Amino acid sequence: MARSDFGEFALIDRIIERLGDAAATDILVPPGDDAAVWTAPGEAVVATIDALVEGTHWRRDTMSPADVGWRAIAASVSDIAAMGATPAHALVATVLATSFTLDDVDALIDGMAEACRRHGVRIAGGDITRGNETAVVVTLLGGAALQRGGARVLRRDAARAGDAVAVSGTPGAAAAGLALIEAEREAEPSAAALIAAHRRPIARVALGRAAVEAGIACAIDISDGLLQDLGHIAGRSGAGIEIDLEALPLHPAAVELLGEQQARDLALGGGEDFELALTGPAQALKRLATPELAVGVIGRVVAEHAGEVVVRDASGRRYDPPSPGWDQLRPPEHA
Amino acid sequence: MARSDFGEFALIDRIIERLGDAAATDILVPPGDDAAVWTAPGEAVVATIDALVEGTHWRRDTMSPADVGWRAIAASVSDIAAMGATPAHALVATVLATSFTLDDVDALIDGMAEACRRHGVRIAGGDITRGNETAVVVTLLGGAALQRGGARVLRRDAARAGDAVAVSGTPGAAAAGLALIEAEREAEPSAAALIAAHRRPIARVALGRAAVEAGIACAIDISDGLLQDLGHIAGRSGAGIEIDLEALPLHPAAVELLGEQQARDLALGGGEDFELALTGPAQALKRLATPELAVGVIGRVVAEHAGEVVVRDASGRRYDPPSPGWDQLRPPEHA
Repeated sequence: MARSDFGEFALIDRIIERLGDAAATDILVPPGDDAAVWTAPGEAVVATIDALVEGTHWRRDTMSPADVGWRAIAASVSDIAAMGATPAHALVATVLATSFTLDDVDALIDGMAEACRRHGVRIAGGDITRGNETAVVVTLLGGAALQRGGARVLRRDAARAGDAVAVSGTPGAAAAGLALIEAEREAEPSAAALIAAHRRPIARVALGRAAVEAGIACAIDISDGLLQDLGHIAGRSGAGIEIDLEALPLHPAAVELLGEQQARDLALGGGEDFELALTGPAQALKRLATPELAVGVIGRVVAEHAGEVVVRDASGRRYDPPSPGWDQLRPPEHA
Repeated sequence: MARSDFGEFALIDRIIERLGDAAATDILVPPGDDAAVWTAPGEAVVATIDALVEGTHWRRDTMSPADVGWRAIAASVSDIAAMGATPAHALVATVLATSFTLDDVDALIDGMAEACRRHGVRIAGGDITRGNETAVVVTLLGGAALQRGGARVLRRDAARAGDAVAVSGTPGAAAAGLALIEAEREAEPSAAALIAAHRRPIARVALGRAAVEAGIACAIDISDGLLQDLGHIAGRSGAGIEIDLEALPLHPAAVELLGEQQARDLALGGGEDFELALTGPAQALKRLATPELAVGVIGRVVAEHAGEVVVRDASGRRYDPPSPGWDQLRPPEHA
């Protein structure tokens, strides 16, 4: 059965059924009305929107429709995780190119449903429309607590001189995975974990919440690249950041397959990792250095060079990596 | 200055500044962080997402970028209005084709800002990315009250046999406006109101709320066409609907410029009107028949032909209009 045999409303019914328990069917007004209605999961609403466009954010030769569905959900959940908030409901708008078959739609939905289950999120509504290129836009809504008139969340503008700077996991893993796919080195045994980091990234929801509990106030997800995203913290906080090149936690498979130099540069500028960068008291950050949360200190916030992130090697010399990170409006170099 | 001179983040800063008071700069975490945070405006969250894609929902020769910006906001507000809820915050994802200039971006933002001000909504966050075709996706979030464990909203599945069926305004006006633009009859004096209905539609927020207050339980916005959207009410409510052809409130300019037959058919199947169709006790609906809310009774809900909408002329004969309404996945006839 071809996709063109389905009208909009029949396709929506098919999608809701296929989502299974990833659809929020028991909320006050479930999918299928003009809008969805649910009881607010916290005193504060936390909300983000993210677009994934074919050709800009993924290509058919490096990502399957199921991977795209997974990534679309995970990318938005990652923004909620970076606030230290609890993700709960997703709204999904999908623009379908005519080349996107019914099997592709099914796979996209399956990938979304898997990512929803993995991240404790359910789809509460959506929109589906025709276009010349396929795009998936996800709005993720979550909740946070209030305290003293503000929200108990992690912000970009809360870094202070004297804070330690930390990052979770092994930044650069997703970019290393993409580099291996593009070099047709997918089959190499050590590549699997890196390719999974690219195609099936997991947002750091538990870490964000643990950071709030530990008294951390400042975080960002590093989906645009560690240096660029730390630059946002530096810029919004009016502080400088110093990173110790030797302290960067590299993925062993990235070092093995791409060499230490490239693994390091991808860790600094690669992008598409859904890890968190955090700043705060060193003691508080150390409480997050568990095997599960995997937070490691990589530098410090300084009063000098406000707005700027400086990387230094073991001898204290400044190191400038080749890639400045990801800009969604810049044409991709491989296009 | 060309758009390509702007990176993603400089463009975002420019947009937030240009939005002025249409940006939600005083919420708990304003635009510019990983996610926006605000205090929930009601006990229940009401949420909808809508995509407007160039070529599918608008064409450059019939709508300016400012009109597109306006419509993108108004279309999502209309879904919140159809719930009888109060719209408050918008998240906007924009995919920009390279042909979309910086002037176009500015105009798009200005149109959005105007629509936000008109509808009492502010933009709390967004995403901007490159693509091959321009698309605007708006998530609109609002609030509603709870009562007896449910939400105090208007639903599609709440029509009951014996209800009267009513509609606000003059359905078909937006489609008549588009027909006049396509026929290059824009300059005709009576055309202005119809063209405004197409390019600057106003969502029926006050009506939705008044309907809830009047004890009405069932409504839908008729953006896909009156008959098709009444079909959703009939289908979800498990009831039939009978419409009196003679009772349809037609726009006098549509009758004057296109003739009664076409004005009627556009009222039944035209789409893109942000009017509301409601069902409920005739007495309650009559309270909404004020000059401002402009609600008129056009038919009734019946126990027969469940799921089906039947239009009858003055002699009781069934009337089948030529257009079945708008399906977002169907290629447009004028393409």
